[in-house]
Amino acid sequence: MNEKRVLLDHGSGGVASRDLIENIFLPRLNNPILAQFEDSAIIQAGSARLAFTTDSYVVDPIFFPGGDIGKLAVHGTINDLAMQGASPVGLSLSIILEEGFTLADLERVADSIGIASQDSGIPVVTGDTKVVPRGKADKIFITTSGIGIVPDSLSLGSGHAKPGDVVLVSGYMGDHGVTIMAARSGLAIKSSIQSDSAPLHRLVAALLEQVPDGIRCFRDPTRGGVATVLSEIAEKSHVQIEINEEKIPVRPGVDTACEMLGLDPLYLANEGKCIIIADQKVAGTLLSTMRQHPEGQSGEIIGSVISLPPGRNGRVVMKTAVGGTRIIGPLSGEPLPRIC
Amino acid sequence: MNEKRVLLDHGSGGVASRDLIENIFLPRLNNPILAQFEDSAIIQAGSARLAFTTDSYVVDPIFFPGGDIGKLAVHGTINDLAMQGASPVGLSLSIILEEGFTLADLERVADSIGIASQDSGIPVVTGDTKVVPRGKADKIFITTSGIGIVPDSLSLGSGHAKPGDVVLVSGYMGDHGVTIMAARSGLAIKSSIQSDSAPLHRLVAALLEQVPDGIRCFRDPTRGGVATVLSEIAEKSHVQIEINEEKIPVRPGVDTACEMLGLDPLYLANEGKCIIIADQKVAGTLLSTMRQHPEGQSGEIIGSVISLPPGRNGRVVMKTAVGGTRIIGPLSGEPLPRIC
Repeated sequence: MNEKRVLLDHGSGGVASRDLIENIFLPRLNNPILAQFEDSAIIQAGSARLAFTTDSYVVDPIFFPGGDIGKLAVHGTINDLAMQGASPVGLSLSIILEEGFTLADLERVADSIGIASQDSGIPVVTGDTKVVPRGKADKIFITTSGIGIVPDSLSLGSGHAKPGDVVLVSGYMGDHGVTIMAARSGLAIKSSIQSDSAPLHRLVAALLEQVPDGIRCFRDPTRGGVATVLSEIAEKSHVQIEINEEKIPVRPGVDTACEMLGLDPLYLANEGKCIIIADQKVAGTLLSTMRQHPEGQSGEIIGSVISLPPGRNGRVVMKTAVGGTRIIGPLSGEPLPRIC
Repeated sequence: MNEKRVLLDHGSGGVASRDLIENIFLPRLNNPILAQFEDSAIIQAGSARLAFTTDSYVVDPIFFPGGDIGKLAVHGTINDLAMQGASPVGLSLSIILEEGFTLADLERVADSIGIASQDSGIPVVTGDTKVVPRGKADKIFITTSGIGIVPDSLSLGSGHAKPGDVVLVSGYMGDHGVTIMAARSGLAIKSSIQSDSAPLHRLVAALLEQVPDGIRCFRDPTRGGVATVLSEIAEKSHVQIEINEEKIPVRPGVDTACEMLGLDPLYLANEGKCIIIADQKVAGTLLSTMRQHPEGQSGEIIGSVISLPPGRNGRVVMKTAVGGTRIIGPLSGEPLPRIC
């Protein structure tokens, strides 16, 4: 008998990842909060409304242009909190080390975690370290969790998009994913291309301050990229999302590297960018506020939300640069493992 | 040059683990909460006083008598919250899978996580799944984090022990550690010996309800066992802790297996037991309350806290069964990797 097994694609953040969670974990952890599939859970703890999130980082290589596994872990968890409009309060840090990993490299990762934590202003308050024998892990895996405070009045969600809304991105797409894939393939790409790893909590706070009403959701397009995240939003909101290829910011060097590596920037992971769905009335204020912020300088309005044609499920349609249209599905069957 | 590298002993929860954290992480994550080395951090989130904790589970084998890696992860995180007197609110679950791990085994672990979560009444509210290629991890690693609410009036800490206090344990020592080591060595031990994996939040809540004042600290003697935890308490409280070997509950089967495997039950991990330091005035109430509880039926008073002789650092001294005394240090130089 051919036993069913875990495949690399189960970790890509696309359709297979979702199937694994929906088929194996959700029925057993029966829980409406978990089933919402947001970047963090919103839970009530006494009088506090908290965001709570976790992610494991298994990126390969662990050091890459623009960052390393430690920086990524700190920023990734801060961003998952920020995407729910939360003010991050503290992080946890749990490390699995392979026996024989050099202490020099561990110090380099720890340096990077320390700097990312200090620069973000979010402390690491608790942690754990485990060691497994040589060959039972790959150098270092990091799991960070985070807690944030969510304003009581705030209601964000991937199911909140409405016809007439606009779709914004906070900057160039694909930088992180292409950097990792290029590093793994040995492709020498332009030195200007590097991971976009960055914390987004200050950008989100600035946007929510300027635009207290009208933002439907923030999402960070990590594994699976903007295509997968917009597909999830379209599905959960029962809408059609139309995006304009020419409006999606992609650096020329990323475009070139994607062609050489056979990748599509729409499906590549980003680690310092967000997608925002918002009422069109606030689009101008959002865009101008975003562009004044270091993490949003290259922000763009890339599309809009329209009603679904009768009988259709939520979907994403792209107007291509050459004037056609293309249906954009979630990442499926193209494993991009260990991208974060 | 012989580069310094991570050793298995760095993950044993003893002296080497502590050195790694003190030398590499603490200086870079400079943070008074992290430096307290408690089972969970206490942080303020708005108006809420929270306990926050994380642990990675890399136990080998993943299935063992009395439990598996999933049950262990749920109970371990609940217990780290409970040790700070917190009422657990929710858990996160982050899983690193090795490509090729069977979905049948994953379902078995997920079943176990679901049952442990439901039996404890503590939901898993957020999660993540990553996959690494075959040979880059060992089957499955699980990292759980947890949030709990700590009563404002409660002040517990490993540095709070005072001369005149008593030392209690909630039951038999060493069951989990000996079960794992026996499973790995292929030793057939008595079928009555199995992991003690169990959630302690209800026991702790019952004890705090009956004894609102006078409990100095709870600690769960996982990696490094009762010897390492008592050493930490003695050091942080600047006291001498005297324990009585004859009073320490150890199952006869565990004693026998320890002799065969060359292990000392005082240094073995427990996953459903706690140590309590408390004012001697409340010792009787604590013991009787504990023994009425399913997780504390075999509880004992095993020792007392006395003043340090002049010029001494905090230490643990054991009166042995044969009438001598022995200094009990923290686990050192004896790697017991992947015990949890």
